[in-house]
Amino acid sequence: MRVLGVDPGLTRCGVGVVEGVAGRPLTMLGVGVVRTPADAELGQRLVAVEQGIESWLEKYRPEFVAVERVFSQHNVRTVMGTAQASAVAMLCAARRGIPVALHTPSEVKAAVTGSGRADKAQVGAMVTRLLRLDAPPKPADAADALALAICHIWRAPAQNRLQQAVALHAAKAPMTSKGRTA
Amino acid sequence: MRVLGVDPGLTRCGVGVVEGVAGRPLTMLGVGVVRTPADAELGQRLVAVEQGIESWLEKYRPEFVAVERVFSQHNVRTVMGTAQASAVAMLCAARRGIPVALHTPSEVKAAVTGSGRADKAQVGAMVTRLLRLDAPPKPADAADALALAICHIWRAPAQNRLQQAVALHAAKAPMTSKGRTA
Repeated sequence: MRVLGVDPGLTRCGVGVVEGVAGRPLTMLGVGVVRTPADAELGQRLVAVEQGIESWLEKYRPEFVAVERVFSQHNVRTVMGTAQASAVAMLCAARRGIPVALHTPSEVKAAVTGSGRADKAQVGAMVTRLLRLDAPPKPADAADALALAICHIWRAPAQNRLQQAVALHAAKAPMTSKGRTA
Repeated sequence: MRVLGVDPGLTRCGVGVVEGVAGRPLTMLGVGVVRTPADAELGQRLVAVEQGIESWLEKYRPEFVAVERVFSQHNVRTVMGTAQASAVAMLCAARRGIPVALHTPSEVKAAVTGSGRADKAQVGAMVTRLLRLDAPPKPADAADALALAICHIWRAPAQNRLQQAVALHAAKAPMTSKGRTA
């Protein structure tokens, strides 16, 4: 199973591709960050996020995309940008018929460290160990993206197969929308 | 000036196209709602919003897109869906080099009714009058989309021209993103 993990953000959007199955050693295929300049127009930043995510989907052809679930209770100043970047990532995946899974930060931490309250350093250390890397991926957004992918591979493999079938079906039969013309 | 107003939402995304200039009678070219089923996967709903917005951009070729600015302080349960739908609308416009403007609900209400605290009925009544319609557009999301477009036409025409030049330039020179491969 090949999974693209996305830690959404407008300034830094972490992306990481992991391949493997639950119970077997995992392999990192790629890791990086899609960046957009803070002084650009919001619409242009979203276009840049789309281009970045598209290039990762195109290059790695993941079977699943795992995106961090955004909560509106958190940091009010950054939550809107995070929600917007995550929408673009989900859109890119769904357009290609790739199933999207959302995992909460505590689910991801619990999956890779055993504790839902682990800190960034602990997550980075476990990602390094699980993927047999020389050093923790930087910045933290990149490590978090890999942790998301690992979390997805380890959670509910049967559910993943079902979700994949549903997403493919939905991509083949798009929904319609109606409007009224003056 | 031709403006597509978008009142973002996942369940109902209001869209309305208005043509005109400040100080002259305005014309409604089209109004409608892009709907997505609440029980569909989030990614698929975003794809449906994209398809809906794209068809409106394609049909009416607006010079500006005016989107309601979403605040994270508001209704926590719906704000994420609103932020995600607005991200898709902004993305669609920016991809085509169409400048996107964000207006707050109170700016829109003040523009069309004279009061930033006007209620839905008042906004609907003024939209009906300003566009010389037979009845208020329904649902309220559709009327709000028209109000957004009107608000945009009436606010800072000089600023609009500048923004249009910047958006076109940005669309021609897209930003780049970098990644590292294992």
